[in-house]
Amino acid sequence: MKVTVLPKVNEWSALCERPVFDQSQLEQNVQEIIENVREKGDEALCTYSLAFDGLTIEKFLVTKDEIELAENNVSQELKNAIQLAKSNIEKFHVSQLEESKVIETSIGVKCWRKSVGIEKVGLYIPGGTAPLFSTILMLGIPAQIAGCNEVILCTPPQKDGSLNPAILYTANLVGITKIYKVGGAQAIAAMAFGTTQIPQVYKIFGPGNQYVTKAKELIQREGIAIDMPAGPSEVLIVADETCNPSFVAADLLSQAEHGADSQVILLSDSMEIIQEVMNELDQQLEQLPRKEFAEKALSCSRAIQLNSIETCIDFSNNYAPEHLIIASENADKYVDSIVNAGSVFIGNYSCESAGDYASGTNHTLPTNGYAKNYSGVSVDSFVRKITFQSLNKNGIQNIGPAIELMAEAEALFAHKNAVTIRLKSIQND
Amino acid sequence: MKVTVLPKVNEWSALCERPVFDQSQLEQNVQEIIENVREKGDEALCTYSLAFDGLTIEKFLVTKDEIELAENNVSQELKNAIQLAKSNIEKFHVSQLEESKVIETSIGVKCWRKSVGIEKVGLYIPGGTAPLFSTILMLGIPAQIAGCNEVILCTPPQKDGSLNPAILYTANLVGITKIYKVGGAQAIAAMAFGTTQIPQVYKIFGPGNQYVTKAKELIQREGIAIDMPAGPSEVLIVADETCNPSFVAADLLSQAEHGADSQVILLSDSMEIIQEVMNELDQQLEQLPRKEFAEKALSCSRAIQLNSIETCIDFSNNYAPEHLIIASENADKYVDSIVNAGSVFIGNYSCESAGDYASGTNHTLPTNGYAKNYSGVSVDSFVRKITFQSLNKNGIQNIGPAIELMAEAEALFAHKNAVTIRLKSIQND
Repeated sequence: MKVTVLPKVNEWSALCERPVFDQSQLEQNVQEIIENVREKGDEALCTYSLAFDGLTIEKFLVTKDEIELAENNVSQELKNAIQLAKSNIEKFHVSQLEESKVIETSIGVKCWRKSVGIEKVGLYIPGGTAPLFSTILMLGIPAQIAGCNEVILCTPPQKDGSLNPAILYTANLVGITKIYKVGGAQAIAAMAFGTTQIPQVYKIFGPGNQYVTKAKELIQREGIAIDMPAGPSEVLIVADETCNPSFVAADLLSQAEHGADSQVILLSDSMEIIQEVMNELDQQLEQLPRKEFAEKALSCSRAIQLNSIETCIDFSNNYAPEHLIIASENADKYVDSIVNAGSVFIGNYSCESAGDYASGTNHTLPTNGYAKNYSGVSVDSFVRKITFQSLNKNGIQNIGPAIELMAEAEALFAHKNAVTIRLKSIQND
Repeated sequence: MKVTVLPKVNEWSALCERPVFDQSQLEQNVQEIIENVREKGDEALCTYSLAFDGLTIEKFLVTKDEIELAENNVSQELKNAIQLAKSNIEKFHVSQLEESKVIETSIGVKCWRKSVGIEKVGLYIPGGTAPLFSTILMLGIPAQIAGCNEVILCTPPQKDGSLNPAILYTANLVGITKIYKVGGAQAIAAMAFGTTQIPQVYKIFGPGNQYVTKAKELIQREGIAIDMPAGPSEVLIVADETCNPSFVAADLLSQAEHGADSQVILLSDSMEIIQEVMNELDQQLEQLPRKEFAEKALSCSRAIQLNSIETCIDFSNNYAPEHLIIASENADKYVDSIVNAGSVFIGNYSCESAGDYASGTNHTLPTNGYAKNYSGVSVDSFVRKITFQSLNKNGIQNIGPAIELMAEAEALFAHKNAVTIRLKSIQND
């Protein structure tokens, strides 16, 4: 980690910068995959399975037998853990459902809105170095609560053509039955346009590598919605002298192990704390299986001393971290000053892992500074809020004259006439 | 209007198609404007003002004097109308604010989320053929309710370099003081990147012509959020024999007058009703100042007879209209079947104009079928919902073991260790 001591405010924006990757070639490659899937459908998917995964797959849909078999291959212990997580995620996400309130804005004018689940949604779950079944909980549960009619899931198969049992178990647990063995940009394209085997959806969710992320960005241009733009994962920890430096180091590493491009930032008002955390980091790093990833991520990361914890929060608001941990016994008092962050972890016992798996909050969050303009995934992400209005005769009489005046001032006479014709008709009743 | 009688279901998707415009040249032109503003800032804005509007503008910010002058040039009648609309829009949008609820998902694990206004937002208000001050209400009011810190507004000046007084009056009324005389794609670019005179914002809202729309699409690729993708405005009316055909015709025209590319769709189970509406259309059309626009829009629009009102609702759900009017005395009974729509107008006295101006609902709505995957603008559009979690020792003891198991199953050992290290520390207390 690079240590910076008491930077001036005009140096902050450079310190908040995320690493930038050259993606010019990437876009062209991904566009080609998308066009190919759009034109050739399943045939293109088969070709990519062979080319990228060395697998001959003709039917992408996972069978019931495969799901049942997976059920037997997940330990009861892990099943219980997943069920606990599911229960907590459900409790928190159910609380996000909005009740429909009818507001009578003027006498005779009633307005309300209703949350309606997006009819067809697609979830993408990466394969790769870690089988992220936890992400199925984070996307599948709010989709169910929102009342989405059709929820499909695409995920790349393992080398032997099968899927990790925990993936299948979890998908089945949250009621997803249409699971397809397709990964990469081609999976995103298949869900965006539909193929013979894979249904088209209206919105696509989920993390992925740079191909998947680029594919989501490109299909968004064609009118398919996506959860949010994405960059590498990140954590910012604000630690004061009441923190536990070994906890802080463990939290920094749990972010750093995600990948070499993960970013971790440590802010403190105390140089001693920074030093203690750095010492802990060195020790804990040695014991990690994913040490190599974590080391690379740490080499691009920063520890910054600032003159107070309040200033640390200011800096954090500028950085707009995906995850923000306030490692302090007095964390509560900083909550109200937090303006830009995805998810916030309050106090020494609230580790990021808790939110990643089981506290109940969602772990699909805005990275790369997008916390300034985007929220994390929630039930809101899976619904549209349709507005309704119902005016009776009294209602149009009450607000009609105002509408006539405003429409006329905007030179929209047909808008005005739609009111005039009703008011006249009521007068003649 | 083209009349289609009892089409088969497999013909629906062709009937639901929106007109497609060739935009290949457009993208290149708009990208050039964006790059120019990014590089040259205000200098580029001055050049475009001269080139596109024939105006020499050096200071884009509207002065206090101009705002005060405008105040005197809006009639008291119109002011009252705008204030009534404001009051209704406020009532409905305040009701969209979410209260923060703390959910204890497991004992010792508290989760909540907090709506925080996006710090900097930019509103775009078109000039052109109609001064859309009503859109300032629709965007400025929820921005204020959401608690956005900085709300700026860009709008193109009139030929004499001034702004329409109603625009200035309304902006001032909703508390917007930073109003800039800049329009077009260059205004979007200025708000996206910031110039010396115009501050950068995190999210951009508002309607516009194809240049503005394309610019919003392009700057979204750079990480600036936008309200939603946009296409031409549209209405779908479902009318049964209890409708008033002259009202229906007036509503179709109020949509059609927006522009030659507006789309209007009439569905009914009764051929008589369709015929009566068509007759009314011919008569009412003659009296419209914007007759030419409306005629062109009608020429691309459709009246479709279907076998029942339920089937009309099905068709509407496939079309996913921006505005849906249920022109029937029995409109209430169809509300629950509506799945895809932006804003819905229930019954014979709920004209689209009411929602456009003063019922209280928002008029910035998803067009072009985007009602399938996007909501209209609301207070939600101006906030991020940040999640928080606070675990005490008891909390991490309760869910820690589940997290350890899940993290291990995902091969994320540092995630596991962040819990283990805390559980061990508690044991040693």
